[in-house]
Amino acid sequence: MLGREYDQTCSIARTLEVLGERWTLLVIRDVFNGRRRFDQLQESLGIARNVLSTRLGWLVDEGILEKRPYQERPARYEYFLTEKGLDLWPVMVSLLHWGDRHLAGADGPPMVIVHKGCGGEVDDRRICRRCGKPLEVRDARAEYGPGAPPETRRRAEPART
Amino acid sequence: MLGREYDQTCSIARTLEVLGERWTLLVIRDVFNGRRRFDQLQESLGIARNVLSTRLGWLVDEGILEKRPYQERPARYEYFLTEKGLDLWPVMVSLLHWGDRHLAGADGPPMVIVHKGCGGEVDDRRICRRCGKPLEVRDARAEYGPGAPPETRRRAEPART
Repeated sequence: MLGREYDQTCSIARTLEVLGERWTLLVIRDVFNGRRRFDQLQESLGIARNVLSTRLGWLVDEGILEKRPYQERPARYEYFLTEKGLDLWPVMVSLLHWGDRHLAGADGPPMVIVHKGCGGEVDDRRICRRCGKPLEVRDARAEYGPGAPPETRRRAEPART
Repeated sequence: MLGREYDQTCSIARTLEVLGERWTLLVIRDVFNGRRRFDQLQESLGIARNVLSTRLGWLVDEGILEKRPYQERPARYEYFLTEKGLDLWPVMVSLLHWGDRHLAGADGPPMVIVHKGCGGEVDDRRICRRCGKPLEVRDARAEYGPGAPPETRRRAEPART
């Protein structure tokens, strides 16, 4: 058993000081999934605008997100993950896989992470199940899995004529 | 970008519903580190007893911890991780490595996870840096790292004569 004085210096405790609030991790998830604008995040998460604003400011102050202007008058910003933010990918992958294993419904995972290079699924060690390559965040992308609601999948597919 | 209806069914969101509160994850961390009894957890975390009691009850109800009696009159219990709880090891490892990389002080990581078999350090894919073996939770143990406070390390070392 690790001793008592240890607790204050633990890297898990320090990480949770920064991230340990559900909305914060869901904001990060959404930015990983390409939602970059305040209104997109607010619509996706359904949280109060002042709460979202506080969380985004906190994540910028912590160096996890950076904001870049995409419009002047009125000024509007998009949020991007910094390198420190992109380093949270393993945390996202491990949360996702635990949820898939223990909390997903009978339909299976709502989202899968796939290797851009070969299309194989990314396992919980972030290794491609198909080609065996150890993957970094830029090697992978999220796709709908079998458990995604059908109406969502239809809407997200490109229009065909 | 993944669509809006997706959010409610996301495995990350569902996982955070269960775990998304700082104390909950720190209780799980402590049980991973061998603190099994109410008083040990309360001393380690320094939280109100009623809050700890609620969190432990929640984790038992969710099937992440199970309690076993170690004393009768008055009844006293120890808390153990179930298989579902042990499956959170990758989440702990990924939180730990992110904190080590971005939040640890100049002294380095306060805790390291090592492969029981060969003593090598466990990397952030849960692979042994020394022997290359992909590790499961029972293959590894936590040890003090260079960033652990000296007084803690002294107290935790076995007495010598």
